[in-house]
Amino acid sequence: MLRLVSSEPGFAAAFDRMVDDRRESDADVARDVAAIIADVRARGDEALAEYSERFDRFAPQSEADWRIAPEACREAFDALTPDLRAALELAAQRITAYHEAQLPQNRDYTDEHGIRLGAIWRGVDGAGLYVPGGRAAYPSSLLMNAIPAKVAGVERLVIATPTPDGEINPLVLAAAHLAGVDEIWRVGGAQAIAALAYGTERIRPVDVITGPGNAWVAEAKRQLYGVVGIDMVAGPSEILVIADAKNNPQWIAADLLSQAEHDPAAQSILITDDAAFADAVAAEVEKEIALLPKAGIARESWDTYGTIIIVDSLDEAPALANRIAAEHIEIATDDPEALFAHVRHAGSAFLGRMTPEAIGDYVAGPNHVLPTGRRARFSSGLSVLDFMKRTSFIAVGGNSLGVVGPAAIELANAEGLTAHARSIEVRLGI
Amino acid sequence: MLRLVSSEPGFAAAFDRMVDDRRESDADVARDVAAIIADVRARGDEALAEYSERFDRFAPQSEADWRIAPEACREAFDALTPDLRAALELAAQRITAYHEAQLPQNRDYTDEHGIRLGAIWRGVDGAGLYVPGGRAAYPSSLLMNAIPAKVAGVERLVIATPTPDGEINPLVLAAAHLAGVDEIWRVGGAQAIAALAYGTERIRPVDVITGPGNAWVAEAKRQLYGVVGIDMVAGPSEILVIADAKNNPQWIAADLLSQAEHDPAAQSILITDDAAFADAVAAEVEKEIALLPKAGIARESWDTYGTIIIVDSLDEAPALANRIAAEHIEIATDDPEALFAHVRHAGSAFLGRMTPEAIGDYVAGPNHVLPTGRRARFSSGLSVLDFMKRTSFIAVGGNSLGVVGPAAIELANAEGLTAHARSIEVRLGI
Repeated sequence: MLRLVSSEPGFAAAFDRMVDDRRESDADVARDVAAIIADVRARGDEALAEYSERFDRFAPQSEADWRIAPEACREAFDALTPDLRAALELAAQRITAYHEAQLPQNRDYTDEHGIRLGAIWRGVDGAGLYVPGGRAAYPSSLLMNAIPAKVAGVERLVIATPTPDGEINPLVLAAAHLAGVDEIWRVGGAQAIAALAYGTERIRPVDVITGPGNAWVAEAKRQLYGVVGIDMVAGPSEILVIADAKNNPQWIAADLLSQAEHDPAAQSILITDDAAFADAVAAEVEKEIALLPKAGIARESWDTYGTIIIVDSLDEAPALANRIAAEHIEIATDDPEALFAHVRHAGSAFLGRMTPEAIGDYVAGPNHVLPTGRRARFSSGLSVLDFMKRTSFIAVGGNSLGVVGPAAIELANAEGLTAHARSIEVRLGI
Repeated sequence: MLRLVSSEPGFAAAFDRMVDDRRESDADVARDVAAIIADVRARGDEALAEYSERFDRFAPQSEADWRIAPEACREAFDALTPDLRAALELAAQRITAYHEAQLPQNRDYTDEHGIRLGAIWRGVDGAGLYVPGGRAAYPSSLLMNAIPAKVAGVERLVIATPTPDGEINPLVLAAAHLAGVDEIWRVGGAQAIAALAYGTERIRPVDVITGPGNAWVAEAKRQLYGVVGIDMVAGPSEILVIADAKNNPQWIAADLLSQAEHDPAAQSILITDDAAFADAVAAEVEKEIALLPKAGIARESWDTYGTIIIVDSLDEAPALANRIAAEHIEIATDDPEALFAHVRHAGSAFLGRMTPEAIGDYVAGPNHVLPTGRRARFSSGLSVLDFMKRTSFIAVGGNSLGVVGPAAIELANAEGLTAHARSIEVRLGI
């Protein structure tokens, strides 16, 4: 764990190093991924089957090996304990409500020159959601990806998920049933992304691909951006907690660890104005970490990337927060609004002492797929907009072309685009 | 020019081939671009100067060689003819009005459980606009990129543009003055994109990069997507005109050529229900093409990619249009709305006989930066949203954590994320 004090010499340089330290894999997977994509594009399902056997030790043969039937999803849903089923339903209902209120408005108006202008939003035809296999297969992530697509009006929702050694996660199936997913294909990795983008004999292509994955999946999405739409380039998770000394140190330690348990490369940062409180939180982290089943992961994350910054006044915190541009920012003070008003860059904010970040991961409603690695400077959490596109329209009626046409002719000729000018001139009889 | 008749055998296959025919460069520029990016990242301005000398025959030495002063932009603007100045001003004013009305709404509400939820949109801190050198340096494109950024609230607007042989396009400077651009750097190519993304000694990095460019520029943007935000992966332009026999064939020919004159790889497609009208348009294209200064480009585009599709009824047109997912779609019929209602995929639509596409390139107001190459299936024209990002927020007040917290605990434990569960349990005294 790194401890920085803003009033000490060398703070600025040490803070900059911490911010610039990339926690993302530099593994050169680009060439492997390009080869896999080209192979799937050329050989389709045959290539998919070979990669499944090689990477997931699972060679699909029957149709059931390729695709999980809707009935299996319904059965998994029906087999949930009542508490878990109710929890998933509450999550789905709240996520749906938040994203429904996010739908963009169409525009259609006629301006002072009689020119009708507007824009129409529509869902894409098909969306592919990647769901990782193994320990990272989270039903909550499936809901967070599938529900915005459904709300956006996407007609066809397709999941691709690897089933290593043939093992299927029943929680994922249950969530897929609840979210109304149309198809589930048992393929993973870069090969699954290639199949969703280009299509194969069995799998029809989609228009947008979202969802978390390992370095190969992320690189495949990056390489296929433009062939399809993608959600974002994602890296390891991070949380920044801004807390004064009035907090219970145990609560803040729990919040820091809720991020650290995700990934050895996750980062938890605390900014506080009280050195004794900082020490108390650090001590609680040590106590809490011992209780965790994922203690090994949390320990590695906290030791390697955990950071406590002690400032003279919390007024310094927003400027530091804007440099960090964290995925999650928690502000645990009496008046969180006062600080939040100065935070320009963050994926999602959690305001007040009773708003732990984990509540946003599951049931609050806003999306938990958020920009990481300082990308909150320019990108946003997943939303219905990622599954929609806009068609603008123009209708020049009556004599309006005579009003604005000459200016367009002037500009077209200045740019040397005389055919552009001519398409207006012939209509105006010029 | 390709002529297809929908009622003839083999139409479906021929239409599919036309749609799938990629007009984009397959040149393997990826490796060169990666090397240039790494070099600029490592050596900064020194590398920029070397690439400028090599690719643009222009070695910057004085500060004026690196950066164009605001006064030079004002002088270029003041030197415009009154007609051209008025035309640029009308364009800027109409583009501004359309994009101001596009600004997204913040959200802030408290739900039935007392949980406050919302989202705040903000402009990014800095945007970089690429402006190509030479013949493709269009002042209209500069306005279409810069004005949405300004309207979005971007504080720092930076242009990078090559000046081959030291030559500067005064129209670009005039448009930069009008749009309120803050900095203009005389660098181009992949090296300019790398400089904007990572920064150099002279150039501070930006958060979003937009603007058209050649294959190197496009590949650099694609490779740096994730380090910065980008607008889109763009390819050659295209137009689809749906027209009945009541149109003046000369008008429709002019519209087809207004796209063809852009680029030998541009594509112009006509769908009509009248074979004689199709012949008349084809004849007018031949007449019109001869009049154009850019006849060579337009000829190559029309001969290679130009397509006329004759259908039995225009009712067939929307389904074909949705397969093409054209950047521009013009519907020249008495009731364009009837067909447009069935068009799901298009960048921008031009409705009615008096709405040539060129009016949208300059003065209508909607953005002329639009998705090409079938990307209207999943992406939209440039907008203020490309220069903004959203921070969601959650504030759980009073006893609300007791209402929704247990469901989150249930889900966290089901996912094996016990530290997540614990951050809620400690607050609830569980």
